Amino acid sequence: MSTRFFQFVGGDTGVWRVVKTHTLIGEPLLDVARLDVVAGQDNASQPDSGWLLRGITSNERYVERAEKNTLVEKQQGLGRPEATCAALIPIRKNAAWWALTQDERRHIFEGQSQHIQIGLDYLPAIARRLHHCRDISENEPFDFLTWFEFAPTDEEAFNQMLMQLRASEEWQYIDREVDIRLVREA
Amino acid sequence: MSTRFFQFVGGDTGVWRVVKTHTLIGEPLLDVARLDVVAGQDNASQPDSGWLLRGITSNERYVERAEKNTLVEKQQGLGRPEATCAALIPIRKNAAWWALTQDERRHIFEGQSQHIQIGLDYLPAIARRLHHCRDISENEPFDFLTWFEFAPTDEEAFNQMLMQLRASEEWQYIDREVDIRLVREA
Repeated sequence: MSTRFFQFVGGDTGVWRVVKTHTLIGEPLLDVARLDVVAGQDNASQPDSGWLLRGITSNERYVERAEKNTLVEKQQGLGRPEATCAALIPIRKNAAWWALTQDERRHIFEGQSQHIQIGLDYLPAIARRLHHCRDISENEPFDFLTWFEFAPTDEEAFNQMLMQLRASEEWQYIDREVDIRLVREA
Repeated sequence: MSTRFFQFVGGDTGVWRVVKTHTLIGEPLLDVARLDVVAGQDNASQPDSGWLLRGITSNERYVERAEKNTLVEKQQGLGRPEATCAALIPIRKNAAWWALTQDERRHIFEGQSQHIQIGLDYLPAIARRLHHCRDISENEPFDFLTWFEFAPTDEEAFNQMLMQLRASEEWQYIDREVDIRLVREA
């Protein structure tokens, strides 16, 4: 059975070497040398100098059936041999976002911000997995951890995609965001 | 700051005395004498003979703005002196439910099952708090824990409300449900 729970351990070990850590808004994350992605619960511990972020994959909260069908048709899995670049982007949304109702959030998410459509435009090049943190406990430092994998030749496209998302209405609700770029070194 | 994390400890202690435990579908929960409701994290431990269920309150997943306004206007808080009866109803939804998209789930939840409208009909008599479990970890025994409080004179109405919900399309996706009735004995 495949796990839904993932831990991202920033420290001195792991196959992913950190190329750059850039804090866009809010409190920074400590700079680390490497990242370990641990699948499943209770396997990882906080490194002496570094951090541990954890999240759980979940049901989709905004995607509708027609969008889902297109997503499933176009998207690629993680772990493609050519996808030697990765990004971990932890974000937190502010209290105003969480006070909105489902229809209001969906309206901003897709109606105004076209979050799903922007993502679709970059498939199949960019593979991604979204992890939710908010309901694991009351004290998680972020609401979402998104993990992206892509080939070096698609890095330009990846940056373009982020630029579009960050310019959207939805991003006005984000009060913490860190962008960690990595390369695989097995 | 008010907590979002709650633990329900079934055992020998707590101000709530268990009157009846009824398993409607799926694996039963052990019969216990009393229930303790613990607010906040890391305060409770699994009793020697009994169980511990935990959940976290969250943003609303289906309610739309107009419904929310009516809810806020009509609903009462927990802890009313006259509300000496309570019910804890843990439920789990099946894989088919979680594979649905947001629009499909909302359609079944309110379009077909009128979950929100049925609940509104019983306000302000029945106070409730919904706790999510599914994203706390991979191994939670239920998806949702709902806690209800009401006066003894409203028990009949409470049973009526449950009957309506259980007859709905939405309940066809439920594969585990236990109904624990309690009275407050301080």
